[in-house]
Amino acid sequence: MAKPWATFGIDLHLEPAGGGLRRGLTDALREAVRTGRLAPGTRLPSSRSLAADLGIARNTVADAYADLVAEGWLSARQGSGTRVAERGVGVGAAGDDGAGAGAGAGAGAGAHADADAGAGVVGGVGVAGALPGPGSRPGVPGASPSPEPVHRRTPGLPPPPAPRPLYNLIPGTPDLASFPRAEWLKAARRALTTAPYQALDYGDPRGRVELRTALAGYLARARGVRADPDRIVVCAGFSHGLRLLGALLRARGARTVAVESYGLDVHWNLLAAAGLRTTPLPFDERGTDPGRLTDQDAVLLTPAHQFPVGGTLHRDRRAAVVDWARRTGGLVVEDDYDGEFRYDRQPVGALQGLDPDHVVYAGTASKSLAPGLRLGWLVLPPHLMAEVLRAKGGIDACGSLDQLTLAEFLTSGAYDRHVRAARLRYRSRRDALVAELARRAPKVRATGIAAGLHVVLRLPPGTEQQALRAAAWHGLAVHGLHRFRHPEAGVEQDDALVVGYGTPPDHAWSGALEALCAALSE
Amino acid sequence: MAKPWATFGIDLHLEPAGGGLRRGLTDALREAVRTGRLAPGTRLPSSRSLAADLGIARNTVADAYADLVAEGWLSARQGSGTRVAERGVGVGAAGDDGAGAGAGAGAGAGAHADADAGAGVVGGVGVAGALPGPGSRPGVPGASPSPEPVHRRTPGLPPPPAPRPLYNLIPGTPDLASFPRAEWLKAARRALTTAPYQALDYGDPRGRVELRTALAGYLARARGVRADPDRIVVCAGFSHGLRLLGALLRARGARTVAVESYGLDVHWNLLAAAGLRTTPLPFDERGTDPGRLTDQDAVLLTPAHQFPVGGTLHRDRRAAVVDWARRTGGLVVEDDYDGEFRYDRQPVGALQGLDPDHVVYAGTASKSLAPGLRLGWLVLPPHLMAEVLRAKGGIDACGSLDQLTLAEFLTSGAYDRHVRAARLRYRSRRDALVAELARRAPKVRATGIAAGLHVVLRLPPGTEQQALRAAAWHGLAVHGLHRFRHPEAGVEQDDALVVGYGTPPDHAWSGALEALCAALSE
Repeated sequence: MAKPWATFGIDLHLEPAGGGLRRGLTDALREAVRTGRLAPGTRLPSSRSLAADLGIARNTVADAYADLVAEGWLSARQGSGTRVAERGVGVGAAGDDGAGAGAGAGAGAGAHADADAGAGVVGGVGVAGALPGPGSRPGVPGASPSPEPVHRRTPGLPPPPAPRPLYNLIPGTPDLASFPRAEWLKAARRALTTAPYQALDYGDPRGRVELRTALAGYLARARGVRADPDRIVVCAGFSHGLRLLGALLRARGARTVAVESYGLDVHWNLLAAAGLRTTPLPFDERGTDPGRLTDQDAVLLTPAHQFPVGGTLHRDRRAAVVDWARRTGGLVVEDDYDGEFRYDRQPVGALQGLDPDHVVYAGTASKSLAPGLRLGWLVLPPHLMAEVLRAKGGIDACGSLDQLTLAEFLTSGAYDRHVRAARLRYRSRRDALVAELARRAPKVRATGIAAGLHVVLRLPPGTEQQALRAAAWHGLAVHGLHRFRHPEAGVEQDDALVVGYGTPPDHAWSGALEALCAALSE
Repeated sequence: MAKPWATFGIDLHLEPAGGGLRRGLTDALREAVRTGRLAPGTRLPSSRSLAADLGIARNTVADAYADLVAEGWLSARQGSGTRVAERGVGVGAAGDDGAGAGAGAGAGAGAHADADAGAGVVGGVGVAGALPGPGSRPGVPGASPSPEPVHRRTPGLPPPPAPRPLYNLIPGTPDLASFPRAEWLKAARRALTTAPYQALDYGDPRGRVELRTALAGYLARARGVRADPDRIVVCAGFSHGLRLLGALLRARGARTVAVESYGLDVHWNLLAAAGLRTTPLPFDERGTDPGRLTDQDAVLLTPAHQFPVGGTLHRDRRAAVVDWARRTGGLVVEDDYDGEFRYDRQPVGALQGLDPDHVVYAGTASKSLAPGLRLGWLVLPPHLMAEVLRAKGGIDACGSLDQLTLAEFLTSGAYDRHVRAARLRYRSRRDALVAELARRAPKVRATGIAAGLHVVLRLPPGTEQQALRAAAWHGLAVHGLHRFRHPEAGVEQDDALVVGYGTPPDHAWSGALEALCAALSE
């Protein structure tokens, strides 16, 4: 292939054109260096992590690295990992003349992998890799599926450069390794076997009626949403729903959307892309203060479980938000991203239940099942249906088979079973995290309600950066609370880590918790 | 449910709350009339077609209609079908007080159906229903799966009102009844079983690399596309791709897109919604004439098989289009909607192969598999990637499981097998149609290359409306060529029917052909 590397570290595919994987990887890397797509000095990912990304043996990667070090394209130094050599070091360019590019190549069984940019909600890990260097590769007994930090800090020595994260604690993704594959396939089989063939045609722009009907029942039962299938619009995840609402607001001449002081920049950016300014509302221990809602055109809230700070919107404030909407005609958008997961008691019902004519309820399968399904839903006030469908282009955006499968999943009870099991899993992780930190890092305070897939760990003032450095050094990808603060929000003392305990697979959880405790007890 | 009917004839769902389907349907209809959602005088669909939509026995529908006629909510007259009675006729509102609306209702096993608006590509059938009236229902021996016209014209009498179409010959949809369900499920199982759990996460905004890699190979091999996985963007069907391109063009300050004289208004409307004016190019027997390409910013073409007229763009004109793009920097968008289906010889290669830096290739699974998959792809010039992904919102829009399944379908050879089988099916339908019409309706001339899923039947001048009326009377949903003419295109003699022979399921095909011959031989 002519261009096997796209953005380094984001996407890689390889065409082992004869000579097997090692040759294919070596050629692809050499070509990337030769053409400058990998700039001199760029640090490569560790052989372990690249091997995991590619789904090939670690030794294969280490061998390819060693070949290229020997050829002079890469350089390896103990402690600083493998890097692209400075210009002029390369010795020849054998076998990389681009032959075979274009027609005929590219199909079939090439090894390829997709490290998934993690664009969208969590912003991606984006930490450069480091590894001991090819010198250490012989004798490494293959890649273990149970990751452990490569480096262990020796007390008293300054820390070496941060290793590539081994544990992902960035919030926003559930434990994907426990996605109910067998149950999902069963539902898919039942859905596809029983669907009329018309279900494969261009569909209702609102989405499949089977799914909307199943959702209406589920949301009424589980979240107190006043839902009618006719008022539900299936969309490709919450982001798509927010884009539709942004387009609708803009088409109505809206200019400003009030948001919470803490939230996701991708959401603010989506609204900005629609030509809408976001202005943060004040925030205190009772959550977002709607007292400053005046002439904004809409407000975007996470009432059941503020993201990321973690509280529930106080009932007086819930009422105040709805009052504002009724008084001014403003629109309330309720982002109910993880309403299924509350561990101490029944979750508080959706704000939408108070006033379905002024509140848009937005839900998603991204936290309860998987973001890769790209399935979300809006429950809309009736007068907004036509405009949202216009923004949607008058066409269904999601595959009907996935929609029918989710409908079957909901109506068969498989969804409830999966959520119950996930709730137990996340609750036990959260309990362990809180207990372990209380014991080993008493200066850290776990805050927020017992809910969801993440916890906010409050830190002593001025120590967030230090904690982030320690976490990185212990192989953790984790974000500080500052990162989630709206640029126009008032600056407060809010040193904290936002820890997504839902993300790691089961086998990595104890290692992740150990690393977190080690980082925070220093 | 409080609001079981949305737009009548478009979407219906029923909650048989005790008493079975008949009771549920009766209640839902009564409620719809009572609350005014079905206006007085509205004609209901025939019991046959509503039963087919709902997947229930025709007698159940006929019984419900009869109940409501007896109650005075509906009126039935021989020859004008069943209609909502005029106001004041209703006798009581027993059992429809709206109890049970809201929380708790709506889930579960209600009978429901989705008549699929057919929005998007083909514009929908949109023909009102008529039926003999409930009086004729006793003795109807159930709904036969093989539809036949309800009415038979008696020679010499004026035709009664057009019956609801029994055969859909509107182009744009393949034979969905022959969707390879078992093979698709097999591929889905293999894909979901082998995918790494990271495949369920937020994905690369270009789409899954497995699918892009498989597509690059397939498109190079089958369509001569110069494709690289890094330059492919998976999108939710062609419409989504066109929206992305429209947004990109608009963001670059583009104002005008040249289009063919004949095409789909939904595409022109999508471009208009992006703020772009469409101007038609002249059209002659050699296809679209690119001689009038001047300062337009882009041109949208169907070079392999002009839609709907049916020719192939002449090689000189292909070259001229590319020359124009190189000279002016204009963008060529190649809509290769049915490139898989050519019956006389190997399909002509994609225009994109001439100049991948100026031509965007757009393909779709909507014709080769099913529109309900909502999977299409753009192959882009490298310099457009970033902008298209920005227009896409920086996020993958399609479910990763469907993408992985299609990738598996492509690489396993199942896609090729399905396309080969479909090609044989459509070819034999086309051959039968051409032969039968030559025999029975010699004044009609089948035109266009032997390809695709539709044929253009040229009619004697001034007879298109008459042919459309005859077709409707024979139970056919079919469009005239006029309908596809751009409003600014020069008026020519173009009386013709555009017959989508791919749409009916196998069991309905002979009936559809018979009805078409009958209509055109009058």
